[in-house]
Amino acid sequence: MTISLGELAVRFGCELRGDPAALVDSVATLGQAHGRAISFLADSRHRRQLGETHAAAVVLDRESAAGCPVAALVSENPRATYARIASVLYPQQRPPAGVHPTAVIGPQVHIDPSAHVGALAVIGPRTTVGPRAVIGAHCVLDQDVCVEEAAWLVARVTLGRGVTIGARSLVHPGAVIGSDGFGFAPDAGAWVKVPQIGGVRIGSDVEIGANTTIDRGAIEDTILEDGVKLDNLIQIGHNVRIGAHTAIAGCTGISGSTVIGRRCMIGGAVSIGGWLSICDDVVITGTTMVSRSITSPGVYSSGIPLEEARSWRKLVAHFKRLSSLYDRLAAVERAVGRRAGPARGAHDD
Amino acid sequence: MTISLGELAVRFGCELRGDPAALVDSVATLGQAHGRAISFLADSRHRRQLGETHAAAVVLDRESAAGCPVAALVSENPRATYARIASVLYPQQRPPAGVHPTAVIGPQVHIDPSAHVGALAVIGPRTTVGPRAVIGAHCVLDQDVCVEEAAWLVARVTLGRGVTIGARSLVHPGAVIGSDGFGFAPDAGAWVKVPQIGGVRIGSDVEIGANTTIDRGAIEDTILEDGVKLDNLIQIGHNVRIGAHTAIAGCTGISGSTVIGRRCMIGGAVSIGGWLSICDDVVITGTTMVSRSITSPGVYSSGIPLEEARSWRKLVAHFKRLSSLYDRLAAVERAVGRRAGPARGAHDD
Amino acid sequence: MTISLGELAVRFGCELRGDPAALVDSVATLGQAHGRAISFLADSRHRRQLGETHAAAVVLDRESAAGCPVAALVSENPRATYARIASVLYPQQRPPAGVHPTAVIGPQVHIDPSAHVGALAVIGPRTTVGPRAVIGAHCVLDQDVCVEEAAWLVARVTLGRGVTIGARSLVHPGAVIGSDGFGFAPDAGAWVKVPQIGGVRIGSDVEIGANTTIDRGAIEDTILEDGVKLDNLIQIGHNVRIGAHTAIAGCTGISGSTVIGRRCMIGGAVSIGGWLSICDDVVITGTTMVSRSITSPGVYSSGIPLEEARSWRKLVAHFKRLSSLYDRLAAVERAVGRRAGPARGAHDD
Repeated sequence: MTISLGELAVRFGCELRGDPAALVDSVATLGQAHGRAISFLADSRHRRQLGETHAAAVVLDRESAAGCPVAALVSENPRATYARIASVLYPQQRPPAGVHPTAVIGPQVHIDPSAHVGALAVIGPRTTVGPRAVIGAHCVLDQDVCVEEAAWLVARVTLGRGVTIGARSLVHPGAVIGSDGFGFAPDAGAWVKVPQIGGVRIGSDVEIGANTTIDRGAIEDTILEDGVKLDNLIQIGHNVRIGAHTAIAGCTGISGSTVIGRRCMIGGAVSIGGWLSICDDVVITGTTMVSRSITSPGVYSSGIPLEEARSWRKLVAHFKRLSSLYDRLAAVERAVGRRAGPARGAHDD
Repeated sequence: MTISLGELAVRFGCELRGDPAALVDSVATLGQAHGRAISFLADSRHRRQLGETHAAAVVLDRESAAGCPVAALVSENPRATYARIASVLYPQQRPPAGVHPTAVIGPQVHIDPSAHVGALAVIGPRTTVGPRAVIGAHCVLDQDVCVEEAAWLVARVTLGRGVTIGARSLVHPGAVIGSDGFGFAPDAGAWVKVPQIGGVRIGSDVEIGANTTIDRGAIEDTILEDGVKLDNLIQIGHNVRIGAHTAIAGCTGISGSTVIGRRCMIGGAVSIGGWLSICDDVVITGTTMVSRSITSPGVYSSGIPLEEARSWRKLVAHFKRLSSLYDRLAAVERAVGRRAGPARGAHDD
Repeated sequence: MTISLGELAVRFGCELRGDPAALVDSVATLGQAHGRAISFLADSRHRRQLGETHAAAVVLDRESAAGCPVAALVSENPRATYARIASVLYPQQRPPAGVHPTAVIGPQVHIDPSAHVGALAVIGPRTTVGPRAVIGAHCVLDQDVCVEEAAWLVARVTLGRGVTIGARSLVHPGAVIGSDGFGFAPDAGAWVKVPQIGGVRIGSDVEIGANTTIDRGAIEDTILEDGVKLDNLIQIGHNVRIGAHTAIAGCTGISGSTVIGRRCMIGGAVSIGGWLSICDDVVITGTTMVSRSITSPGVYSSGIPLEEARSWRKLVAHFKRLSSLYDRLAAVERAVGRRAGPARGAHDD
């Protein structure tokens, strides 16, 4: 795909500083771009590479444009504009309509004629596949599943019975949606399985990463609202509800029945306990342990950055002796008459 | 399935407060139940919903029964009783006996006539599938595997050579059991692979979550005893042994050769080091780092709950300066004659 | 396979203390070995078992050899020598050359006649499978993939378009290599997907664990150099580069664009942030949070080991009050004339 800078400027509402007839046909990083490649600058980290770029053009903000040695497409949101330009230059290769002859299709299945069902996919009874949807190779859809218009299961996705995937959602290989939640009742030293009767409803424009797992509800449904973005290897427990446009990075786990608001950004390897409520517009940094509800928008953390191991061991030893530290301080306070506390500090229980 | 309260009371040993002829046909939460739905109360968190429920009946304990506005099934263990009732109302839809024509069956395989082998399953040489076992669509069983009576591999489960799955065990999609353990010997700046010769033995009534991985042993076997319950995205290293009825929540990892006792409850995102021993009846809360053996039953933790990020950064800075804090305290102690220590505190090494 | 101790000694450069004609045919642990089983001692943890072993021979170092009650193969690197001997006794059962009739092969695919393609594998257009490579059952290879000589995809491996797997690399079931990176641009309260155009290049002699995920690059490629070893359930973000012979344990996540050096050893459940650089020969212990670059070889940590829960809660409470502790100490210091600081300590911002 080749396109002129002038057309890009018009199409994506950019100010063009350069020749509108100049052509681009690919994207590249500032450092690697040459020929007809377009690049972008959306992060001050890379500003020093701008001056030396050989890109045909760079998408950037007004502030950076002055230092651009080549044609500039000035945008208020260079990353989003770059994303849209890249989508034009690298259009998705949607596979052709039709059902591969090796696919195994159950009874009462409705597959829209414009949909694609790939090699060796298995589609269970009473499942519906909407217009232009893609069911990639080796997907397994249990009974009563609904995959809506233009949703795309890349390959090897598993959907349990009754799962709904909203329009234009994209699910990566290995994702398992609608497996049983982890529900057991202790009884006489063993566990009685609690049947997991609820479903999973995935909204529109959701993306779900590779090998991510989303459990079906125990009684009611597990829900991902529109525009949610999940990275790889995330675990979503039963009856979790994730609000629209919340994005969650890889290796994060969310325990059952927790409700997460809209537009949250949750870092990697975060652990969120069960039965909690997190309000809209919360940012949680990577590796945080969330063991209580969050009621105010803001940024939250609990990770401790690394140290050289010898220093770290000393810090841990100090930490583990904090009780005695408080006691010693209280004793000194009493000795200098700063505090009339009891022999043991008020911090002890 | 429709059943009377009287029959449920007799079958599950409950005291019935209400009309034994009243019928139930479904389950629902206290808040959503209506018509013939039965609900349960097993957690004080939900007690305030009890007074407003429109359930046909509620399973609850004696203490809560007084506040129940509808029929009550009084049980000493409401969650377990609910689980059993739900299993009656929602019986498992076990697929029919027989081997799907698209399954690929190797030589010398024995499949019981009452077992089900789903579409596109691959079963390797000398594998045995017991009575009423279910091998779901897209499962891959390597050679010499044994799946015992009524075990159920939901779909897309991978079993390595020689793996044994005990009776009535349930394995969810994406689980990989019997892949090579992570064993390498350093040699001249590179790694020599240590052949992983052991197997994996899964007991009876075990449940294994979606995309969970269990490595085969290096020499001897990796073992899960009867009744173990594993959630999703758990990693079990080679030669781990997990005692009967231990339950482990999602995203937890257990390194090689660690032995875990019976009836333990291990929270989500716990990390357990290698070559450790954890005794019976240990509870480990979520995100705990286990780097030593545990020899006494009890509850163990090491996670730190989140703070607002600005406060958290300050706490981390304080933590990182603990050495100087101890030094300053020791200096003050010497100044007030409370302690005849050396210039540097005894905590330094 | 049966082999004499004399042949093993010659082949692997060991000093033999014992009968060179004695035969071994299997491996076993020191405790379980009997008959013709060979064992090894590479860890002082197991030395006390040496004196009681009934192994036919033991591979060990010079220091331990004196206490060996049976034949000894003395090696400078007993674990590596054991690994090589085990590989001889348990040779890999490479499946036969040829393409299984149920495999689905796209157009313009080149499969070397000595390669194996297993049951129900799907191979996309223009893909190349090299000599003696193994594509196991249920693998899905998208278009333009290259699997080099003697590489082995065990089963159910997914490779995205354009992915390259180097010679002799081994990939375990459920691994997904080449799924989209997690790239989105915020725009008006929602997310615009950034097309993920880069590829993934896996070097030679790499091992990739079960259900591990490796994202394709956003623009340039994600790269694993030769000899890298990844355990199970690891997440590798887009544009990560991992240096040769680095080994990473399970449940670890590495965010996008981070570069990791050669010969690093990274423990389990480590979280590494994005856009970082970690130099060669770094060791990171399990559960560490890496939020800054590492420029010196060494050992790094940030995990805090567990405590009994009641003690732990007290420590956390102490930790959360560290600001007041610093304040109280500063007040005492002023009271005893040790420090002329302001009313609030210098640690506050």
